[in-house]
Amino acid sequence: MIYLDNAATTRPNENAVRRAGIFLTERYFNPSALYGGGFAVNGELAAGKKFLLSRIADPIDYDITITSCGTEADNHALFCCGKRGNIVTTEGEHAAVFACAQELKNRGIEVRFARLKEDGSVDEEHLLSLIDEKTSLVSVIHVNNETGAINRIAELSKRVKAKNPRAVFHSDGVQAYGKIPVKLNKEIDLYAVSAHKIGGLKGTGALIRKKSLPLAPYIFGGGQENGKRSGTENVFGIMTFYYAAEEKFARLKEEQKEVERLREEVWGALDRTLFTRLSPQDGTPYILTVSAEGLRGEVLQRMLYDNGLAVGTGSACSSKHRYSRVMTACGYGERVLDGVLRLSFSPQNTREEGLRAAKILNETANKLKEKTAD
Amino acid sequence: MIYLDNAATTRPNENAVRRAGIFLTERYFNPSALYGGGFAVNGELAAGKKFLLSRIADPIDYDITITSCGTEADNHALFCCGKRGNIVTTEGEHAAVFACAQELKNRGIEVRFARLKEDGSVDEEHLLSLIDEKTSLVSVIHVNNETGAINRIAELSKRVKAKNPRAVFHSDGVQAYGKIPVKLNKEIDLYAVSAHKIGGLKGTGALIRKKSLPLAPYIFGGGQENGKRSGTENVFGIMTFYYAAEEKFARLKEEQKEVERLREEVWGALDRTLFTRLSPQDGTPYILTVSAEGLRGEVLQRMLYDNGLAVGTGSACSSKHRYSRVMTACGYGERVLDGVLRLSFSPQNTREEGLRAAKILNETANKLKEKTAD
Repeated sequence: MIYLDNAATTRPNENAVRRAGIFLTERYFNPSALYGGGFAVNGELAAGKKFLLSRIADPIDYDITITSCGTEADNHALFCCGKRGNIVTTEGEHAAVFACAQELKNRGIEVRFARLKEDGSVDEEHLLSLIDEKTSLVSVIHVNNETGAINRIAELSKRVKAKNPRAVFHSDGVQAYGKIPVKLNKEIDLYAVSAHKIGGLKGTGALIRKKSLPLAPYIFGGGQENGKRSGTENVFGIMTFYYAAEEKFARLKEEQKEVERLREEVWGALDRTLFTRLSPQDGTPYILTVSAEGLRGEVLQRMLYDNGLAVGTGSACSSKHRYSRVMTACGYGERVLDGVLRLSFSPQNTREEGLRAAKILNETANKLKEKTAD
Repeated sequence: MIYLDNAATTRPNENAVRRAGIFLTERYFNPSALYGGGFAVNGELAAGKKFLLSRIADPIDYDITITSCGTEADNHALFCCGKRGNIVTTEGEHAAVFACAQELKNRGIEVRFARLKEDGSVDEEHLLSLIDEKTSLVSVIHVNNETGAINRIAELSKRVKAKNPRAVFHSDGVQAYGKIPVKLNKEIDLYAVSAHKIGGLKGTGALIRKKSLPLAPYIFGGGQENGKRSGTENVFGIMTFYYAAEEKFARLKEEQKEVERLREEVWGALDRTLFTRLSPQDGTPYILTVSAEGLRGEVLQRMLYDNGLAVGTGSACSSKHRYSRVMTACGYGERVLDGVLRLSFSPQNTREEGLRAAKILNETANKLKEKTAD
């Protein structure tokens, strides 16, 4: 099986899992326990959290709260900061933000959605035009999980703050963290990340916060995570995230280049009479979204799987409607929308896998095309 | 090290971890992925969830939503059902409920706390007297995590519903699930459980819900868990919970008896001139709370740890104040409160460990007493 659905989830990093294994055996103590075993585990968590934070933000100005997933981190940001006036977000958000925005709307908050450009990035001028003195929160996804387009959150956050310094700026960084270089500038208040997209485990994420932003807890209880997120810490998940991230950040730039080369080789080997490229050249190298125009993406996806290739069709999290909400917002017609496939890479994917995947894609799409033409 | 802090957390069940290991290697797919690998993982999760539910409730009438911990399950119950009128809870709640109740109070909801009896169980008549037609939610901890007292939630829920059929009845079952027999009667609407108290992992819990109760999500997003709890599922955590629970429920009654025997042997071997028993005879056998009157519990706890015995002092989650809020509500004086120690057992603790623990406790308390008397 060639696995090209790494934006949905990655295979956990074996080294990281093995290293964290000790927290399932000898070092199983509750980190809140007031004796040596608990203190020691708590110290390890603190070191892990400091690493996870310091790779993308200055620990003098930012802190990190571990959550159970990127979705929880986004919920925390949206529901705790989107309480007044209006909130501004984009049509390109992952469901983790989009569904919160919809819920805020149900609760009577005005929600304004900025349009997308064809590549899935936000129309910056439109976004800025939606911001006024009553905007309490602005949420812009960093890397679009369906097209791979990168939003310029550094510039955007500066322009947002210039227009309304009191608006909180949040970004969902789940597809960026550990994959592309990120350094939070001071205009970015909140940033959500996830472990399982970079070799960590499902069930661990984090919310990075500028310390000067007051943030209420979203989950209340025993006061873990400095009172910001209660519940006994998922020690194994956090430590696996830490160890996986260590490897990712150590090789981030090389891997980015390797994966970019892979993406272009796959694209180069695809039959242009069958596939149209939707992902922008300057997007994340980890995602190559194409459309087999006129074919049904989900049928193709299953045929590909039967032929030994796992790929996605848009976000795995929002597959209830025929067409992806985000791809629709990019402005594509039905023929393109129907055939959307997302190939998403890991540095572990080899060149041989990439070329074999392209071959399977060409053959399978051809077969389906012939079948459909019958 | 003799570990008698199993109410804080348990050592993960090795078999369960090993069995679930495949979900960290070959079967790492996203359960939402729309191809064979994803479907298969999703099917495993469904089987696990059905097992976890069916051990304590009828799956025809109840469903189960996996959460990231017992605390999240309690937050879900409290914040989604405690929106109107008043809520009634007890002074014996774990912080996971108590802190939510405090937060609801901050938001303008009237919160009424029922008194405790000396053993930590709720004063049932007082609780019932607090319920009126405006009560939207009643939350009663099943097994008090600090004393081990068991609240009669079956009877209580019936009497609550007789007084106000529209009041939602929730119980925090974290210290009960998999340890004492539980069968939810139809007057119990919601029940929170946790994996890591029974050999599962930190970072997994669940909220069991009577299907006829409408319940809004607390975490919004991609619509996982039938839309009740979004975020990519913590597959490894859920499967480990499932496998650990299989073993616990298969031997629940034998283990309950074994642990009860152990508890009484430990108590029998403790020096009564040093220790007073606070746990009731008819409480959970898994918890034996005592007080070394006049001594400082947390000093004793560290000395014990240095002598090879890990025990708790009240809840590990709420150790910021000198005296435990719950133990104070039981009505004990300062001399008793100072010396509280919680010994909590696992069926893996042997008789030899128990007797050795008692010896360490006697010797250490004696030493501290002499030192304090100096």
